[in-house]
Amino acid sequence: MDRVPVLKIGEILLVSIQVDMDDHTALQLQDDLTERIVDTQAAGVIIDITALDIVDSFIGRMLSTIASVSRVLDAETVVVGMRPAVAITLVELGLSLHGVRTALNVERGMELLARTAPARAGSLSEEADHDEALTP
Amino acid sequence: MDRVPVLKIGEILLVSIQVDMDDHTALQLQDDLTERIVDTQAAGVIIDITALDIVDSFIGRMLSTIASVSRVLDAETVVVGMRPAVAITLVELGLSLHGVRTALNVERGMELLARTAPARAGSLSEEADHDEALTP
Repeated sequence: MDRVPVLKIGEILLVSIQVDMDDHTALQLQDDLTERIVDTQAAGVIIDITALDIVDSFIGRMLSTIASVSRVLDAETVVVGMRPAVAITLVELGLSLHGVRTALNVERGMELLARTAPARAGSLSEEADHDEALTP
Repeated sequence: MDRVPVLKIGEILLVSIQVDMDDHTALQLQDDLTERIVDTQAAGVIIDITALDIVDSFIGRMLSTIASVSRVLDAETVVVGMRPAVAITLVELGLSLHGVRTALNVERGMELLARTAPARAGSLSEEADHDEALTP
C-alpha cells in the first residue's frame, strides 16, 4: 500500500493523502499524478490532507512541486482539508506552500477550480458522467 | 493517522481506504460515516478500494456492515476501484460482498447512485456547489 490512489471526478483529479509520505511515495504520487493529468486532460488537482496531523517542510515541498508540475501541464492544484492545528504550525514555522492554493474542503476546492478555470472546468459537474467529453 | 477521512461531494460521501484496516479503524470509520450521513443527509456512499491489494473476510464484512447501516439511514453504498486480482480472489475464496454494489471507478459509482436514487441524487452534480441545498 505504498501508492496513493488518484481518483478522477469529471475534469478533476482527487488525491487523498492518508499514509506517511516518504521520498519514494512522494515521487510515485508525483509520477502517477502527472501521468493521469496528461491521460485525462484534467483541469484541476485537489489534494485532500484531512488525515495529516502535521505538514512539515518535506510535505510542503512535495505539495509545491506537485502544484508547479501540474501548472506546467495546465492543471490548477488546490490543497483542501487542512486542519486548524496544521495551519497554525505552518504559519509559526514560517513555511509557505509556494504556489499552492488552499480551500476548506473538497467542495470548496471544486468551486475554486470551476471559477479559476471556467473555460475548461466550468462544466465540471455536468461532465462527471461523460468520459468521452474528455477525449475530443 | 488511524482515521479514514470522509469527503463530501454533493450528496455523496467519498471514502478512500488506503491504510491497513484493523478493528479499531474499521469501527471508527463506521462511526464517522454514519455520523456524516446523518449530518449531511447524504444520498450515497462511495468506498474506493483502489489501494487495497487484498480484500479478506474482515474487510468484506466491514464493507457489508457499512452498506447495511447506510441503507438503514437511506444512503446507498457503492464500492469502486476493485483491482482485477482482488475480484478474482473474492470469487475464488467464495466471499460475497453481501448487500454491496460495485462499480468500476468513482465516476461510474456516481452514475450508479444517480440512477438508483434519482429522486434525491439525480441532481448530485448540480448540487455539488450548493451546500445550503442540503440543509432545507
